[in-house]
Amino acid sequence: MSFAGSTCIVTGGLGFIGSNLALRLADEGAHVTVVDALVPQHGGDRRNLDERDDIQVVVCSIADADVRRADFVFNVAGQVSHYESMTDPLRDLELNTRSQLAFLENVRTQAPHACVVHTSTRQVYGRPRYLPVDEDHPTAPVDVNGIDKLAGEQFHILYSHVHGLRVSALRLTNVYGPRQCLTKNGLGFLPVFFRRALLGEPISVYGDGRQLRDCLFVDDVVDGLLAAARSPEASGQIFNLGHPEPASLYDIAHLVTAAAASSAPVELVGWPDGAARIDIGSFHGDYTKAKRVLGWQPATSMADGVARTVAFYRERSWYLSST
Amino acid sequence: MSFAGSTCIVTGGLGFIGSNLALRLADEGAHVTVVDALVPQHGGDRRNLDERDDIQVVVCSIADADVRRADFVFNVAGQVSHYESMTDPLRDLELNTRSQLAFLENVRTQAPHACVVHTSTRQVYGRPRYLPVDEDHPTAPVDVNGIDKLAGEQFHILYSHVHGLRVSALRLTNVYGPRQCLTKNGLGFLPVFFRRALLGEPISVYGDGRQLRDCLFVDDVVDGLLAAARSPEASGQIFNLGHPEPASLYDIAHLVTAAAASSAPVELVGWPDGAARIDIGSFHGDYTKAKRVLGWQPATSMADGVARTVAFYRERSWYLSST
Repeated sequence: MSFAGSTCIVTGGLGFIGSNLALRLADEGAHVTVVDALVPQHGGDRRNLDERDDIQVVVCSIADADVRRADFVFNVAGQVSHYESMTDPLRDLELNTRSQLAFLENVRTQAPHACVVHTSTRQVYGRPRYLPVDEDHPTAPVDVNGIDKLAGEQFHILYSHVHGLRVSALRLTNVYGPRQCLTKNGLGFLPVFFRRALLGEPISVYGDGRQLRDCLFVDDVVDGLLAAARSPEASGQIFNLGHPEPASLYDIAHLVTAAAASSAPVELVGWPDGAARIDIGSFHGDYTKAKRVLGWQPATSMADGVARTVAFYRERSWYLSST
Repeated sequence: MSFAGSTCIVTGGLGFIGSNLALRLADEGAHVTVVDALVPQHGGDRRNLDERDDIQVVVCSIADADVRRADFVFNVAGQVSHYESMTDPLRDLELNTRSQLAFLENVRTQAPHACVVHTSTRQVYGRPRYLPVDEDHPTAPVDVNGIDKLAGEQFHILYSHVHGLRVSALRLTNVYGPRQCLTKNGLGFLPVFFRRALLGEPISVYGDGRQLRDCLFVDDVVDGLLAAARSPEASGQIFNLGHPEPASLYDIAHLVTAAAASSAPVELVGWPDGAARIDIGSFHGDYTKAKRVLGWQPATSMADGVARTVAFYRERSWYLSST
């Protein structure tokens, strides 16, 4: 199925994943509207859309988005900082939970036939009880952001079950690639690793660095979002998106450093105050369900993805200098 | 341990469970302040406190409660209507989630040494995957109220783990007994059963009436709240409070009818629109952990509890007529 001619809304579409998705949809011939609140510190930036004039941009909260004409809504918006959620928990609740619920009420009342794909996160699982983590793993988030994101995801699935909306949710693991904000804190370890490697600065890894992560290249996430939107069986369902090559934070840091030809070291350092308490140890996800139901699996090896990411940022130096 | 001389705050203290708890604490010699927003339709009523002048009443949201001098905070406030949460989801989120988070921020900043006991609900489990349901059972709430209550509970436990607060949470099953509002809708099936039996009206049970529930007499819940506050091991922990006599809704309706000497029938009727989709089938909870850690178990048989409840309302007819 092609999205050509369809009306697509991408929330958070000036951000990392959202902008990659919006560009892909526009390339496929969809009528794309991006809704983004441009919340400071969230990584949204108009430049992510490459000044394309075939993508409409509306700057507003998803709670106020006009979704009336949407065939597809890709609801990618969200605040992602674990740290910020702990220092300003009520703001995180507003952005990740209340505005998501208000958005769903808009879909329910204005566009009940639209197909909605929501991006959730592996954070909802908390510390894994077993690996790889499948969708039946109990949810037990370890910070305010995880709690708020879980509630937001649960609202989405509930609105499918109870109100009959076509809604699915993808639980993403750590994502990297082009158009990720590299200069703001609180967006995860990957943009920090890339920034430091590209600038030739040392990379610090907390603890013993052996925590595993299955990192996803953003193009694979976009593939997953489109597959969920296409699948008639996805409605009301939750899917993990993961990667078959879990690697340690230490090894990931070395991979990024090598790809960027940085000579600066990777250093193991102690946990900063408070951070150890919200660390979850190793994580990698079981994406068997996404493979079976959506026909999705990641197409990009970690080595290829990292190389493509480094090449992208080498050509666009503003990603390394903007604040 | 006695609560005599201690300063106790009971949120939702004009409501059903809160007023029973406030009276018990005052009887034990505690300095009791009740905080209650008297939200319409929530069942709070000043008359629940029997005009006791040794209990201070502050009418405000828990988000604005002054907790500075508290030794113990029993955080019982909450909107409990499944139905209302589906028709006004943003209000439910405000009452059960945002105000709970704001309350915890107040405790963290104003009273970090206070002991907090939070009342959560079996609703967080959703449809049981096995019976009896223990605390390790996955959480999967089936309505907005359950999602919001779960987030509120998770915030409480998080604030214990991350900020070192002394907080525990009790997941209550259906509760009945004195001081429950019988005349408002949306407070569960038990007050409806008691009201109808006491008025000699027929009781309607949805579906086949075979859904099991382990109903708790409110005095046993008060015992559980006090046990959690007393236990140094309770901090950061979640406990089910359940009852060893699960009974079907049909049998419960007959028990209540008989206790009230009502001659009106118990009728099985079809599910009303939408209700079946948020029904969870049979439920009874495993309270082994509460027994082991808190030394708690329910002391009241269903027959005794129902008889005492009927006797209470027979003496206080306003519970059947107030609106």
